[in-house]
Amino acid sequence: MRALKPQFITVEGGEGVGKTTNIAFIRKWLEQQGLDYVATREPGGTPLAEEIRGLLVNPREEVVDENTELLLMFAARAQHLSQVIRPAMNAGKWVLCDRFTDATYAYQGGGRGMAVEKIAQLETLVQGSLRPDLTLLLDIGVEQGMARASERGAPDRFEQEKLAFFHAVRDCYLARAAAEPRRYRIIDASQPLSQVQSAIGEALEAFVDAIHD
Amino acid sequence: MRALKPQFITVEGGEGVGKTTNIAFIRKWLEQQGLDYVATREPGGTPLAEEIRGLLVNPREEVVDENTELLLMFAARAQHLSQVIRPAMNAGKWVLCDRFTDATYAYQGGGRGMAVEKIAQLETLVQGSLRPDLTLLLDIGVEQGMARASERGAPDRFEQEKLAFFHAVRDCYLARAAAEPRRYRIIDASQPLSQVQSAIGEALEAFVDAIHD
Repeated sequence: MRALKPQFITVEGGEGVGKTTNIAFIRKWLEQQGLDYVATREPGGTPLAEEIRGLLVNPREEVVDENTELLLMFAARAQHLSQVIRPAMNAGKWVLCDRFTDATYAYQGGGRGMAVEKIAQLETLVQGSLRPDLTLLLDIGVEQGMARASERGAPDRFEQEKLAFFHAVRDCYLARAAAEPRRYRIIDASQPLSQVQSAIGEALEAFVDAIHD
Repeated sequence: MRALKPQFITVEGGEGVGKTTNIAFIRKWLEQQGLDYVATREPGGTPLAEEIRGLLVNPREEVVDENTELLLMFAARAQHLSQVIRPAMNAGKWVLCDRFTDATYAYQGGGRGMAVEKIAQLETLVQGSLRPDLTLLLDIGVEQGMARASERGAPDRFEQEKLAFFHAVRDCYLARAAAEPRRYRIIDASQPLSQVQSAIGEALEAFVDAIHD
């Protein structure tokens, strides 16, 4: 084990950016570094939070109010933080999380057009000052991502949204990355997989080097 | 139909205060007045909100973080407001609701000891300026209420709490009623049912008279 302060890494991106494949690559990378880590995902990560995820993503006839969706996201997050993320970090482990609060800004803020202040208020209520140390944004053109995602079978409640929604999601992610260049690394996910993964590897190396400094 | 601006009436109280029986009495009273109304309950009142209620009340092994519980309560409330309460009032109907945000102050604030400011922040986020017009607080000594409630079968996740929790819930309800005497009517629910119901009837008459003035 390398003696590094435990870090909280999140992986973000819209539909069809290749999160699953690339998270597997990041896990292997963390293992090769001898780092003890927990890999998890949002919304979800605990039995209760996964049940909340089910309420969020399963298509339903009832119109879901945007406040309901936002509060369910943060309810799942509060549970995930208290039961998984904070205990792992307190035990000295790194945390690798498939989506986190940046996704709430992108999907509920960008996609749904909810007020950023509302999201920021809940972020503080639930997280206090906890923020990811590194966020890898897998970025791809919306049409290309949608084409890839459509190969995966029946779309969930979010995947059923229209193209304009996903353009707003991507724009929001890119704007957040531009506003926080120290935390965010944008990875061009339209490249061949080998190039995507060497870009991720380089980003992780640079991140770890910066912690050592 | 009497031409009165639609009113939002809530019924509050701890365990074993006789809410179900007395809500049936209030419904009959509203019908006798020729008032068009919707009777509903929290947490719940829509299919999605009832699913959230299930997550909240069903006993589970996983520790439920207090932020998770609070956010789930307000997620259910946001859905209930958008799909049931606001549409009913916009259509000119009265709303009779079995528990509302006062219960969140009492159970999560009083019972769990969560910061009142946190609850107030979510109340504003979800409700804007909407508050009940009349709140009937059915009040009974904690031991007497618990004895009545224990006759109802397997306790849910809240009913499994200890006596000190329910004392804190009752104290919070009474303090809120004292702070807002115009909105709250305290009904002594330890009396024989006929006396409880004449007290409720008098409170409703006085409330309607005050609207006319």
